[in-house]
Amino acid sequence: MASNTGIPQGMRDFTPAEMTKRNYIFDTIRKVFKLYGYQPIETPTLENLSTLLGKYGDEGDKLLFRVLNSGDFLNKVPENYLENPKSEELVKHISDKGLRYDLTVPFARFVVQHRNEIVFPFKRYQIQPVWRADRPQKGRYREFYQCDVDIVGSDSLIYEVEMIKMLDMVFKNLSINVKILINNRKILSGIAEVTGEQENIIPITVAIDKIDKIGIDNVIAELKTKGISEKAIDILQPILHFSGTTSEKIEMISSILKDSEVGMLGIKELRTVFDYLKEIPTKAEVEFDMTLARGLNYYTGAILEVKSLDVSIGSISGGGRYDDLTGIFGLKDVSGVGVSFGADRIYDVMNELNLFPQLPDASSKVMIVNFGEKAELKSLKVLQTLHENNISAEIYPEPAKMKKQFNYANSKNIPFIIIIGDNELQTNTIQLKNMNSGEQISSDLDNIINTLNNK
Amino acid sequence: MASNTGIPQGMRDFTPAEMTKRNYIFDTIRKVFKLYGYQPIETPTLENLSTLLGKYGDEGDKLLFRVLNSGDFLNKVPENYLENPKSEELVKHISDKGLRYDLTVPFARFVVQHRNEIVFPFKRYQIQPVWRADRPQKGRYREFYQCDVDIVGSDSLIYEVEMIKMLDMVFKNLSINVKILINNRKILSGIAEVTGEQENIIPITVAIDKIDKIGIDNVIAELKTKGISEKAIDILQPILHFSGTTSEKIEMISSILKDSEVGMLGIKELRTVFDYLKEIPTKAEVEFDMTLARGLNYYTGAILEVKSLDVSIGSISGGGRYDDLTGIFGLKDVSGVGVSFGADRIYDVMNELNLFPQLPDASSKVMIVNFGEKAELKSLKVLQTLHENNISAEIYPEPAKMKKQFNYANSKNIPFIIIIGDNELQTNTIQLKNMNSGEQISSDLDNIINTLNNK
Repeated sequence: MASNTGIPQGMRDFTPAEMTKRNYIFDTIRKVFKLYGYQPIETPTLENLSTLLGKYGDEGDKLLFRVLNSGDFLNKVPENYLENPKSEELVKHISDKGLRYDLTVPFARFVVQHRNEIVFPFKRYQIQPVWRADRPQKGRYREFYQCDVDIVGSDSLIYEVEMIKMLDMVFKNLSINVKILINNRKILSGIAEVTGEQENIIPITVAIDKIDKIGIDNVIAELKTKGISEKAIDILQPILHFSGTTSEKIEMISSILKDSEVGMLGIKELRTVFDYLKEIPTKAEVEFDMTLARGLNYYTGAILEVKSLDVSIGSISGGGRYDDLTGIFGLKDVSGVGVSFGADRIYDVMNELNLFPQLPDASSKVMIVNFGEKAELKSLKVLQTLHENNISAEIYPEPAKMKKQFNYANSKNIPFIIIIGDNELQTNTIQLKNMNSGEQISSDLDNIINTLNNK
Repeated sequence: MASNTGIPQGMRDFTPAEMTKRNYIFDTIRKVFKLYGYQPIETPTLENLSTLLGKYGDEGDKLLFRVLNSGDFLNKVPENYLENPKSEELVKHISDKGLRYDLTVPFARFVVQHRNEIVFPFKRYQIQPVWRADRPQKGRYREFYQCDVDIVGSDSLIYEVEMIKMLDMVFKNLSINVKILINNRKILSGIAEVTGEQENIIPITVAIDKIDKIGIDNVIAELKTKGISEKAIDILQPILHFSGTTSEKIEMISSILKDSEVGMLGIKELRTVFDYLKEIPTKAEVEFDMTLARGLNYYTGAILEVKSLDVSIGSISGGGRYDDLTGIFGLKDVSGVGVSFGADRIYDVMNELNLFPQLPDASSKVMIVNFGEKAELKSLKVLQTLHENNISAEIYPEPAKMKKQFNYANSKNIPFIIIIGDNELQTNTIQLKNMNSGEQISSDLDNIINTLNNK
């Protein structure tokens, strides 16, 4: 019967039940952002492609959704591009705008554009959808929400601690068991420096990360395959053979990096963060993970990532310190730090582990049964009074069979039914039925309202 | 200095101050929707063009933002379209998806697609942005929010009344003085029928609407210019010369439409709605306006519109009854009624009339002054305790000059300052300064928290 009702792949509708759960996540995150003094902003869905292109690497550029220019879009295309058109050439002339790909680049653009209205350090949060023309797969969508919190205009390490504390509080409040991983870009630079392997910092961290899975010998074999020098592998030996606590790990790395200025600066930053955290401990374990190597192109200090302890789903949040994000838009020397919460993955984790609390249905608290014309006007007045008393309520729209009306209330989880039939009209009373307990009382409206307000 | 930081025309950034005001409007509207038992849904930003095209008229099709297919988009274009490409031909082959143009068509698509999960009558609300490639001008944007509330699966007139009551409550709660206009599509059909001017119902209503401005004679002249027959003008004479109350107007129209079955049905519906409203009156005046003629292609019963009494800005909300919205997607005979709140125009009205209440700034309630290393750890502990007590608070990130720190607090409207200096460290006390009154107290943390919670 129905035709033509699909939606594009990787896109989703959200039903009321899903909205209730999603809003629970957003509200929990937003509450923590506010508690720490962050303020909301929003940026437009469409940005100029000149703002977006080149900011996410070649792969990112390919994943941008581009919007066709309005009207006769071929009008502005130079003749010679039309003779034997190629997509990659033509696209530059028929599309000026793209869909928001993340919240970080628009935020940098926002800071530069509004720099004279902003009070620095600027603490902002932003909860909006982003779009990526990725291959859709389980848990990966083409439209998904990011919840970003950033502070720009200060390089104080207090804010690294603040990010960790916010991550900790959000996941504590959501009842998700997590581990918070921290690394420092400067430590990775130090390792690159002392090993002489500036170009290979990613293969090195990837290989070391596999020790638990494949063993030291295989890691060394992998390092060799990747062309890492014998000398570098020698220097890395203590790391490969080490196991110990975070502070022991920091000591060990610090002895390796003792001749690298940048590396030692990274160690110092990391130590300061851990010193703060000793005074104001987190619920989740915060672990120094020197294999954590995300965002190497823009992070310059702390690198953060959160992993669920109970579901293997990759990281559910991440972030770091960037010293020159706004530089791409011409505003130099504005350091910032931020994290992004992946709302969709958090949703999947909570669903899988059954972590959502009993959430109030978004439907009415009360349904008034419809007994037809005679009772309808009285019923509408009662409805009005309920609304004036801030009680969510509705009336069944027509005098259908009792069973049908009750079925409607049941399937919408409406907990109370009000009955105003002939009897009630005569005695000027109202009957209230509790759909869960079956309990039924007959009383005047004031009493009914009191009863409802106390449930 | 800054380069390349613009946004596309008709698009907007929202600063924290604007977000606070906008959220006040959204929250007020959402609260009323919930009070009446409506549940939230969301639909994706991108819909298939097959869903969108042809639903908004030719003009609407032109205003759709179309998204370029990913990758080598020319790949699927038939050879002959590439030889001498024309925009209007090529577009069909290089773009499958478009941006949401309103919330009504996606809602209809949603209802059909999810019809087996939905409990009818289905009461839903939806607050999301929509996009139109309109010529930007004052008060008209290319990205703007709609707040829609609809009920489908019942033709009960109780829901027409519910829409009017919700419109009334929203504008009462926002302190905007409005008039709610109501008409009925069937009455317009009746007029078309009795005058024999089925094709000219729009010019007729437009002309009659001008009586106050240009006078009866000019209206008659205009009707003639538009080719309305003498006979039709004769029949319309009572309408042109009439002035009176809504119920007198209904009587008058009903005598003109006495031979039109559809017209009399419209009168009956209108009377029923006003009868209900007599029992549960609105704050705003509800006026029968037979010149109200929006959405003639889809509305089949009530037509609603809201006008601000104090700003001339056109309608700030509107809606109506549609008997076959889901028919376009293959699901017949699902009647619905709904209204849409224009959040951006409401924002403009409230700004112009200075109607926003004193809204709490989204920034922290407390700033802890940073006195450097010695006090920092103690300060962070105090900060943590404030957060645990649900008091939004932040610490200045570095031991800057007092003046700079106070300036920051001032410019962010942070009302309280906590000072933990050498003195306080020695006596284990905390100083709390009220930035508005200048009042300063020195006490222990528990007392400070009590004080803050009571302000």
